[in-house]
Amino acid sequence: MYYALIMAGGTGTRLWPLSRRAHPKQTLKLIGDRSMFQLAVDRLRPLFEMEQIKIVTREEHVELLSEQVPALPAENFIIEPVGRGTAPAIGLAAIHLRHHDPDAVMAVLTADHHIARTQHFRDVLAAAEQLALQGHLVTLGITPTFPSTGYGYIMQSEALEEVNGFAGYRVELFTEKPDQATANDMFESGCFSWNSGMFVWRVDRVLQEFERQMPAFYSRLCEIEQAIGSPQYQDVLNRLWLTEKKQTIDYGVMEHARDVVVLPVDIGWTDVGSWGSLPDLLPADDRGNTVVGRYMGIDTSDTLIFNTNGDRMIATIGVTDLVIIATSDSVLVCSKDREQDVRAIVDQLESQEGLSEWL
Amino acid sequence: MYYALIMAGGTGTRLWPLSRRAHPKQTLKLIGDRSMFQLAVDRLRPLFEMEQIKIVTREEHVELLSEQVPALPAENFIIEPVGRGTAPAIGLAAIHLRHHDPDAVMAVLTADHHIARTQHFRDVLAAAEQLALQGHLVTLGITPTFPSTGYGYIMQSEALEEVNGFAGYRVELFTEKPDQATANDMFESGCFSWNSGMFVWRVDRVLQEFERQMPAFYSRLCEIEQAIGSPQYQDVLNRLWLTEKKQTIDYGVMEHARDVVVLPVDIGWTDVGSWGSLPDLLPADDRGNTVVGRYMGIDTSDTLIFNTNGDRMIATIGVTDLVIIATSDSVLVCSKDREQDVRAIVDQLESQEGLSEWL
Repeated sequence: MYYALIMAGGTGTRLWPLSRRAHPKQTLKLIGDRSMFQLAVDRLRPLFEMEQIKIVTREEHVELLSEQVPALPAENFIIEPVGRGTAPAIGLAAIHLRHHDPDAVMAVLTADHHIARTQHFRDVLAAAEQLALQGHLVTLGITPTFPSTGYGYIMQSEALEEVNGFAGYRVELFTEKPDQATANDMFESGCFSWNSGMFVWRVDRVLQEFERQMPAFYSRLCEIEQAIGSPQYQDVLNRLWLTEKKQTIDYGVMEHARDVVVLPVDIGWTDVGSWGSLPDLLPADDRGNTVVGRYMGIDTSDTLIFNTNGDRMIATIGVTDLVIIATSDSVLVCSKDREQDVRAIVDQLESQEGLSEWL
Repeated sequence: MYYALIMAGGTGTRLWPLSRRAHPKQTLKLIGDRSMFQLAVDRLRPLFEMEQIKIVTREEHVELLSEQVPALPAENFIIEPVGRGTAPAIGLAAIHLRHHDPDAVMAVLTADHHIARTQHFRDVLAAAEQLALQGHLVTLGITPTFPSTGYGYIMQSEALEEVNGFAGYRVELFTEKPDQATANDMFESGCFSWNSGMFVWRVDRVLQEFERQMPAFYSRLCEIEQAIGSPQYQDVLNRLWLTEKKQTIDYGVMEHARDVVVLPVDIGWTDVGSWGSLPDLLPADDRGNTVVGRYMGIDTSDTLIFNTNGDRMIATIGVTDLVIIATSDSVLVCSKDREQDVRAIVDQLESQEGLSEWL
C-alpha cells in the first residue's frame, strides 16, 4: 500500500506573531480559509484515501490538527514525545508503517510548503511510487527560479528511464545551503534542484539505510516497534526519545544513501517559511502592497499587511518595504529585509521572564 | 473676579487612533496617568478655585470631562451646540461671565498644550491679570525655539512697565503661519513670539472688540445673554449657533483689536498637536526611541511606540523614524515626517461607508 506521511511537527517561529506554540505554522490560515495542514491533506485526495494519510506531530498539536481534518482516523497520528528533527520523525513513522504493512511505500510530505499545481503534484507522487517500487530512494527536486542561499541543493547525473512522462536522475550529491557565489554557479549549471524535503521510498529500503547509517538509532526503533500495540509503548517511546539527538534526514540518511534518485518537478512550490513568502502567494495592489484584512493606506508601497481581526483597522502613511502583522494580542512591524530575524523576537520572548503568553 | 476658561471643544484628528469622537484629544492620558484636561485644571490650582474654572466644550464631551474632574461644578460647563471655532466659543463664554459678573477678568486657556513649568505659569497668569485690569488685551507669547512654520507669530514693539517682574510689549502685528523663509527671518529678528492661543482680558474689553469687529455676531450674543437662566436658553442658543460661521479669535478679533499686549513667557510650552510632539515630552532610550507600553525591539531607532494595552505585545525589527500607535481597535504605522497627514486617515474614515466606528 502507498502511504502519505505529512510532517506536521514544526513551530514556524519566523511567522510570529501568528505562528505560536498553541497555533503552529501548519495550522494557520495564511492563504484563504484553509490552513496549511488542511491544504496539505486536500491536495493528496483522491490519490490517497484518508486511511492512507499519516501525520507525524507532537502531542500538543494533535487536537487542533484533528479538529481541522476530522475525517482523519485518530490512529493515523504518529506522535513524537518531543521534536528531534526529521530523521527520528521519519524513522518512527517508518517502523509504524512496517509494523502494519511490510511492503508499504511512503511519501514523506510537508505541511509548510504551498503547492499551486495540485493535480500535477499527485501525478508526480504516482510516478514517484513507481520509482520507489524499483528500490530507489526518490527525492522531489524543485527547479530553482533564482540562486537562493536559503535551500539545500541536489546535483543530478544520468537520467533513468521515464515513468509516466517523468524523468528521474541519479543523484550525484546533496549540498547544504550554499554561499551566494556557489548558489550562482549551481543555478547557472542547470544540474541542480532545490531540496524540497519531500521523499518517496519503500519503507524497507529507507529502514535499510537507517540500519546502515544510524545503527544505534535503528536498534532503538526496533525496540519501539516491538512495543507497538502494547501498554508499554508510550513508556518505551518516551524513554528512548528523550535522549535521542536531533538529526535531519538529509544529513543523517540521504547524503550517503545508496540508489538515490531526484525527480525534478514543477509543482508551483513555495516554501512558506517567513512573512516574505506571502507576497509570492497573494495578489498585490498596484503599489505592490499585499493586504489581508481590514486596512487603509496613504502613500504606502511594497508592504505586507496581515490583519487577523475585522474589528481592527490598520492604517499606514508614507511607509515602504515593511511587514505589518496584527493578531489578537500582538503587532509586528518589521523591515522586509529583516523578516528572517523574526525568530529573534521569539528567542527574546523565551529568554525573558513573564512573556510566555506571547510564545 | 478672575476666571479661567479652558477651551476643551477640539477633536485632535492628528492624534488618531487614540483621539476619537468619543475620546477627544483633551481627554487622553498621553503623558503619565492624568489626561490633558486634568492637567489643564491641575496647573491652575491654587491660583483659581474650582468655582472660577469654566469649561467651554460640546455636549457630547461634558460627561467624560466631568468624570475626569468631578470637583468641577456642573454649571461651570458652557456648552456649544456645535463647534464653530475659537471666536464664537470665547464670545459665548464671555457673555456668560458678564451675565454673572460684569467686572470679570477671563484667562482663555487651552487643554491641548503641555506646560512644564506650572508654578511659573500661574505667576504669568497673575501678572497678566494686572495688565488686563489696566484694559489691555493680553496674549501669551511663546519665545520660539526654532523657525517653525506651524504657528502664527506675534511681533512686539515698545515695552510696557513691568508687572511682578514680567515685561509686556505692545503688539505690532499678528501673522498667520509663515512660509519657511519668513519664519527664518522672524526667528532671527528676536521680535516675534509664537501665538499660543492663550489670552487674558477683562470681559467688557473683549466684548467691546466683538461689538466693534463682529457686530452681527455680538448682537446674537446679546440675544443669547438675555435668555440665560430662562427655559428658552437652549432653543435660542441652538437657533443662533447652527447658522453661525466658523471663525478664529485671531482672525476675527485679535488681528485688528486695540490695545493688544503680548507677554512673552517661558513656561515650558509644547503644542501636543500630533504624534510628533510626544517624543519632546517623554524620555527616549539610547537609540532615540520613545516607548509607552509593552514593547520589544530589535535594531529600531528614533521611533515612537505607543501601546495602550498591556496584554498586547508590539515588536519591531530594523525600522527607524516611525510612529507606531496601537489602541484597542486600531493600529497606525506612520513615517515620522508624515505625522501631519494622520488627519487624512480620519478624512477617509469619514468619507467612506461603514467605517464610522473608527472615528
